[in-house]
Amino acid sequence: MKFRYPEKVLQSQSSLIREVAQRGKTIHGFLSFAMGNPARESIPVGLIEECVTEVFKEDPMAVLQYGPMAGDAELTKWVTERVINAKGAKREDNHAMVLTGSGKALGLLPRTLCGEGDEAFCDAFTFPNSFHSMRNVGATPIGIPMDDDGMIPDALEKEAKRGKGKYIYLIPNFQNPTGMTMPLQRRKELYEVASRYDLVIYEDDPYGDIRFSGKEIPSIKSIDTEDRVLYVGSFSKTLSAGLRVGFLYGPDDLVNKISKVKSADGQDPIFNQKIIYRCLQKMDYEEHLKKISGIYGRKCGLMADTLKANCPDCCKILVPEGGMFIWVDLPEDADIDKISEETIAGGVGVVKSEAFAVDSTNKGHGFRLNFSASEDEDIVKGSERFGKLLQKYF
Amino acid sequence: MKFRYPEKVLQSQSSLIREVAQRGKTIHGFLSFAMGNPARESIPVGLIEECVTEVFKEDPMAVLQYGPMAGDAELTKWVTERVINAKGAKREDNHAMVLTGSGKALGLLPRTLCGEGDEAFCDAFTFPNSFHSMRNVGATPIGIPMDDDGMIPDALEKEAKRGKGKYIYLIPNFQNPTGMTMPLQRRKELYEVASRYDLVIYEDDPYGDIRFSGKEIPSIKSIDTEDRVLYVGSFSKTLSAGLRVGFLYGPDDLVNKISKVKSADGQDPIFNQKIIYRCLQKMDYEEHLKKISGIYGRKCGLMADTLKANCPDCCKILVPEGGMFIWVDLPEDADIDKISEETIAGGVGVVKSEAFAVDSTNKGHGFRLNFSASEDEDIVKGSERFGKLLQKYF
Repeated sequence: MKFRYPEKVLQSQSSLIREVAQRGKTIHGFLSFAMGNPARESIPVGLIEECVTEVFKEDPMAVLQYGPMAGDAELTKWVTERVINAKGAKREDNHAMVLTGSGKALGLLPRTLCGEGDEAFCDAFTFPNSFHSMRNVGATPIGIPMDDDGMIPDALEKEAKRGKGKYIYLIPNFQNPTGMTMPLQRRKELYEVASRYDLVIYEDDPYGDIRFSGKEIPSIKSIDTEDRVLYVGSFSKTLSAGLRVGFLYGPDDLVNKISKVKSADGQDPIFNQKIIYRCLQKMDYEEHLKKISGIYGRKCGLMADTLKANCPDCCKILVPEGGMFIWVDLPEDADIDKISEETIAGGVGVVKSEAFAVDSTNKGHGFRLNFSASEDEDIVKGSERFGKLLQKYF
Repeated sequence: MKFRYPEKVLQSQSSLIREVAQRGKTIHGFLSFAMGNPARESIPVGLIEECVTEVFKEDPMAVLQYGPMAGDAELTKWVTERVINAKGAKREDNHAMVLTGSGKALGLLPRTLCGEGDEAFCDAFTFPNSFHSMRNVGATPIGIPMDDDGMIPDALEKEAKRGKGKYIYLIPNFQNPTGMTMPLQRRKELYEVASRYDLVIYEDDPYGDIRFSGKEIPSIKSIDTEDRVLYVGSFSKTLSAGLRVGFLYGPDDLVNKISKVKSADGQDPIFNQKIIYRCLQKMDYEEHLKKISGIYGRKCGLMADTLKANCPDCCKILVPEGGMFIWVDLPEDADIDKISEETIAGGVGVVKSEAFAVDSTNKGHGFRLNFSASEDEDIVKGSERFGKLLQKYF
């Protein structure tokens, strides 16, 4: 039969990120900086194995039968306390929900807040699933121009004035793909615009706990006097990406509605949540974060130094204070598509800015490089390769 | 702030099923037949424990790092072969996708097929998440009248004529809540209506492998010459509900679009899928199904016999040929709300038909009783209690 899809589903949204990784598989000696996998050595494999065994043995039926729709109560409580204590969130009129990966919230918020024809705002270059999810519900994502501090408040206001917007998606710490961290002043300014136009703020913070330089900046949630911020976090970068455990913390009313939408999808696996909770009980999580931030910082430094030594001077290398990505900005007239093809053929996988562009007519002129997933030796080799290739152009 | 939700999200959809179970917790000696949990003794705990350990030990990084977006390739292949071999599906132009619980498909299909203002059809009394999911995308669920063979084709046609329908949701085997199995002839008739009005059929078959009497009836997927059937199955009732592994099998084009919508939600946990696949490798699954169907059949018989011996003659007791529910139909003028309150106060949890009603003005006059989750002794005691309570009314 010929299926009659709604317009929202017919829009193309292939992943250029996975495409680079896939194409690299056919190239001998290919070094990929494309995917955002956590550093292998930062995953506490032995501890997780212990927890897997213990959780199963202690009460097999608790993991094998249907569980509570709301997720594991102990982990939910742990998350609540941490978001309050470590991220400065207030306790009153807000609550937490555990999710199968923080990415699930990318779909849940627009499903809860947006009808067809609504708009939602995000950085002009950002994590693609954030705007794919907006499109999936028939809402229009509007990419807002950025400067060195992130989304530009005046540019946001210009779009918000139309009155069709429902929420703003932001990654204030070590943004994906640019690695940029938003200063407190900018966070406050954007909050004011949100307040003026009655917008929810989706504060996505998957990388926030991996800071290896600079000083921590208060979360937007911590300045959320009007209960308009949904703070979303993850254990994917700090404990295990494959177990898929993330969470959100936000205003009671909003979280209750999200929960209602979510419950029609059925339950999430409770085993994974219990494994993560057990890990948190058995480890010093804050110490663990310091340790892995050290690993990430060293890898970042290695890539940054190699890029600086090998890239032409006209390239702007954005070295982040945390997270897992370095952004290399090329001159505006650079032929990004051609360079991208040549890097892949030349055996190094970097992702061109187009992969993160909300607006396909504004493809940008940069590349995202992941430094967490590769071994030191490959970081150096691949960065050299990339830098030398760029030298041919500039 | 005051959140501006779209109309679709503001509709009430609380779960009367969970409400019964919750209220029962405060009543001493309460016997609950409310939830649809699988029989404890049918879960191969020892085997699953072995598989958990083996899967983790063999390749920890395969379960702890990001995995393939499409889910575990081996399990996907296994599912494909089984749907073809055991359910008569054709191989060409169709493919499988593994999901975190088959319930995820309840949300994915309307998200993929329906825009706001579309309609979707289901039995007048059915699994509530199926029509909650339709409402969540702004589509209108239309409950179609049923007779002893299930959904009535003429009644479906009357509604389909409007031309606004996108798909039909059906549970042809041991329907939830009625336990009813749809004969082949009816399946064919409904398929013809679907064909005439260009509708997709969502064939939900979570219970199909638990048949303890009667003869297997060919799946709708097996008569799907036009590639319009999405067959959805689960390991929740046969191996473990808590691990949350289900699957769908359907037309390439449709499954590709579903996959696109789903990918914006991020990945599913691969560990759970690998555990299920390992179990399937180490066990004789078809033998296991025979064994657990025996357990379910015995429990069903016990409840049916006790109900027959204790309920007034005017009650119609629908004994299913499989699955996990018995339906007790009361006379049309019965005061279901009052009886429901009295059963709960009297210490037995059964779920009134309203919990499954698409149309809140047509609440029905029956009760669903689950026989799988309780011990034999409690099945007898609770069914007696329920029957004796009904005797006061009729």
